Amino acid sequence: MDQGLEQVLAKLDAGRDAALDRLLAFLRIPSISTDPAHKSDVRDAAEWLRAQLDDLGFQTQIHDTPGHPMVVARSQPGQARPLLFYGHYDVQPVDPLNLWNSPPFEPRIEETPQGQVIRGRGAADDKGQLMTFVEAFRAWRDVHGELPSDLILLFEGEEESGSPSLQPFLREHAVDLRASLAMICDTSMYSDGRPAITTQLRGLVGQEVVIRGADRDLHSGSFGGLAANPIMILAQALATLKDDQGRVTLPGFYEGVQDLTDELRRDWDALGFDAEEFLSGVDLKTPIGETGRTPLEMVWNRPTCEINGIAGGYAGDGFKTVLPAEARAKVSFRLTGTQDPEKIRAAFQDHIRAHIPADCSVEFHDHGASPASVMDTSDPAFATAKDALGREWGREAAYIGAGGSIPIAGDFKQILGMDSMLIGFGRDDDRIHSPNEKYDVNSFTKGARSWARILTALR
Amino acid sequence: MDQGLEQVLAKLDAGRDAALDRLLAFLRIPSISTDPAHKSDVRDAAEWLRAQLDDLGFQTQIHDTPGHPMVVARSQPGQARPLLFYGHYDVQPVDPLNLWNSPPFEPRIEETPQGQVIRGRGAADDKGQLMTFVEAFRAWRDVHGELPSDLILLFEGEEESGSPSLQPFLREHAVDLRASLAMICDTSMYSDGRPAITTQLRGLVGQEVVIRGADRDLHSGSFGGLAANPIMILAQALATLKDDQGRVTLPGFYEGVQDLTDELRRDWDALGFDAEEFLSGVDLKTPIGETGRTPLEMVWNRPTCEINGIAGGYAGDGFKTVLPAEARAKVSFRLTGTQDPEKIRAAFQDHIRAHIPADCSVEFHDHGASPASVMDTSDPAFATAKDALGREWGREAAYIGAGGSIPIAGDFKQILGMDSMLIGFGRDDDRIHSPNEKYDVNSFTKGARSWARILTALR
Repeated sequence: MDQGLEQVLAKLDAGRDAALDRLLAFLRIPSISTDPAHKSDVRDAAEWLRAQLDDLGFQTQIHDTPGHPMVVARSQPGQARPLLFYGHYDVQPVDPLNLWNSPPFEPRIEETPQGQVIRGRGAADDKGQLMTFVEAFRAWRDVHGELPSDLILLFEGEEESGSPSLQPFLREHAVDLRASLAMICDTSMYSDGRPAITTQLRGLVGQEVVIRGADRDLHSGSFGGLAANPIMILAQALATLKDDQGRVTLPGFYEGVQDLTDELRRDWDALGFDAEEFLSGVDLKTPIGETGRTPLEMVWNRPTCEINGIAGGYAGDGFKTVLPAEARAKVSFRLTGTQDPEKIRAAFQDHIRAHIPADCSVEFHDHGASPASVMDTSDPAFATAKDALGREWGREAAYIGAGGSIPIAGDFKQILGMDSMLIGFGRDDDRIHSPNEKYDVNSFTKGARSWARILTALR
Repeated sequence: MDQGLEQVLAKLDAGRDAALDRLLAFLRIPSISTDPAHKSDVRDAAEWLRAQLDDLGFQTQIHDTPGHPMVVARSQPGQARPLLFYGHYDVQPVDPLNLWNSPPFEPRIEETPQGQVIRGRGAADDKGQLMTFVEAFRAWRDVHGELPSDLILLFEGEEESGSPSLQPFLREHAVDLRASLAMICDTSMYSDGRPAITTQLRGLVGQEVVIRGADRDLHSGSFGGLAANPIMILAQALATLKDDQGRVTLPGFYEGVQDLTDELRRDWDALGFDAEEFLSGVDLKTPIGETGRTPLEMVWNRPTCEINGIAGGYAGDGFKTVLPAEARAKVSFRLTGTQDPEKIRAAFQDHIRAHIPADCSVEFHDHGASPASVMDTSDPAFATAKDALGREWGREAAYIGAGGSIPIAGDFKQILGMDSMLIGFGRDDDRIHSPNEKYDVNSFTKGARSWARILTALR
């Protein structure tokens, strides 16, 4: 092993307790970004970070935004490939408070049957995670006498409240923030604790549709069988969005969808994903998806259409024989490959319109549209990071996908033109966004060691 | 013309103002049955009726029920065919009060461009209507010295609050109440003011269905494409309830549905029903129903299936990418002919179950089930009444249908084994259940004359 790396790892091990103390101090700041009462706490967390980073030798700035501040730090320029590290220092609200076993902002190290954990709001999401790379930088500096060069750090304080300032900020500071790759530490390991790099995220198109018939709710005795029923029209339009093979029927829908590469198929097969076990956690057992696709393909590599909400007529207690004036649904598409969100939106609208009889009207409300993020894993940094993770955790790291979207990855791609490497050390049982959030001490310490290895390999 | 009848009609004409005064007195009693604050007013209305009927020579009784009282009156027994007359003396609530142009319980005669009207709550529904036959009995008694024989009068005080006491009361008093035919005065004339007898009413089956998948709402990123979506399953199950000809697809659904007789088809064609005009009143124009059926057939003689309500997932403002744990719908079927409500309920449940994948469950909640009411118009009383109505109004009366149900007609059939003859003199613009309810003075006076003619022909 590289001698420098060996020293950095030893430094991290020796500094474990001090690093945990720093994290606990960070966690004591109740930086709840959605709650205006905590506005100054959010700034305190930004200031705390600035002090840490200044101390490490970063050039750090706090940028005000219409919401909470952005913290941007940079190491000395050099000849290395510029890397941007991202994390967020705000946390979720803590209610219901009575479900916490200890106060959310009095963090502590707890012994559990599964090992030591750091308990407190933000432990995993995202303060504990972002501190893994900060601690790696610290150990590096202690060993090498200076920080790795060409690093940009970006810490956001609004991630838990929808990141309203992020896109404008990225646009305004594009020149300063552009790197060759973004390292995002805000995800989990694969479910069984295997280290993983998330290399693809599904995109999303959201669309609300309202179908209107008569100008009022009608009596189904007087009009039933004669007047258009918007709920039936809606049901018929939605029902035909998928065929009996589970495939979306919109013309052109699968344009840009890629089959798995051999490498990804091998990696994913090796994960031994147990769909039945996964589904049993929510009281289901049978994957229902496209015929001929594996369960992991279904959630990570295949697009889908889901109805997220529907409403029309009288759905309260008892019964009212109304023939309703309108019916509405919220429908979303998860996208993969290079599917074009706006083309899919248009195809969906065409499909609905084709079901609308002369007497009815339809109204659409557009919600978010973002393409899938598929990272270019031929960038050697991916193989390098994968290898480094494998060495730290003693088992091969996997390239995995994610069924949801991580907007920041899309924003980096779209605004700054760079791919993201999503590496996180969270666990499925971290209870993020819930009472009793925790982060494994092991995730924290081996997470920092992982970054030390990755940095060494990339620098 | 029968000399007796001529005298009765003359008596009615001469007594017009006194009859209107009696009706106004009746209308001043705020007998709102749904409002506990008006409980004693409802009883006052029953007592007012008893006093009227006693005065006419009826044997009148007020029967207490768990709700509001039933008023039952009978004339002297004789050799004539026993007839039961039904009306209800309770009225709808009056809110929103500020939309009334005059106080709802200070009734008055108003001049309008369309003629004189009686304005006030209950004028048309149903105090004004039931007084048409009461006034006919009065004039008959005045002319003949005694009431027509073999009449039973039944006045209910809970019609506007769901008639909870009616069925038990009919069962308990079945022997006393059974007649050969029930005359119900609680309907309207055909829309253009043509006199009409409603000879068929559609039945109704109501069914709520709840489809459940996972034990909680899921994130559509993590589970979309893999886990069952109850809204989609529900949409697909509902969409296939009707084919592209507008026919219900349930096996056996059309068993018992009868095509129109030649007589009915002639009568209905002669009504000149203008579907476009009818629909334009609710901002629609095109009948959407079974291919090859006339609009009147669609609402009066063809069964249908309507979705009355649907709900699932997130349907509020904005967007949530949930894959919901459940979806629910309320579905009802309007029945005609001898369709069996319970068979149709079972066929519907089978249809839904066939769409439920292994992982999901379905729950049904049964709501009302009543067969269609199709009167036996070969009973000569129908032709007699039709003829009498035609003489009074100067235009041929029509046998018409109704798309909705009138529960009392079904109860009379089911519990007392008798058909109902539904003759009413309401108008489409009477604003029943709404502010500014009215009843045409013409409806009231010619209504009473109509009953005098019908009674004469039947006695």
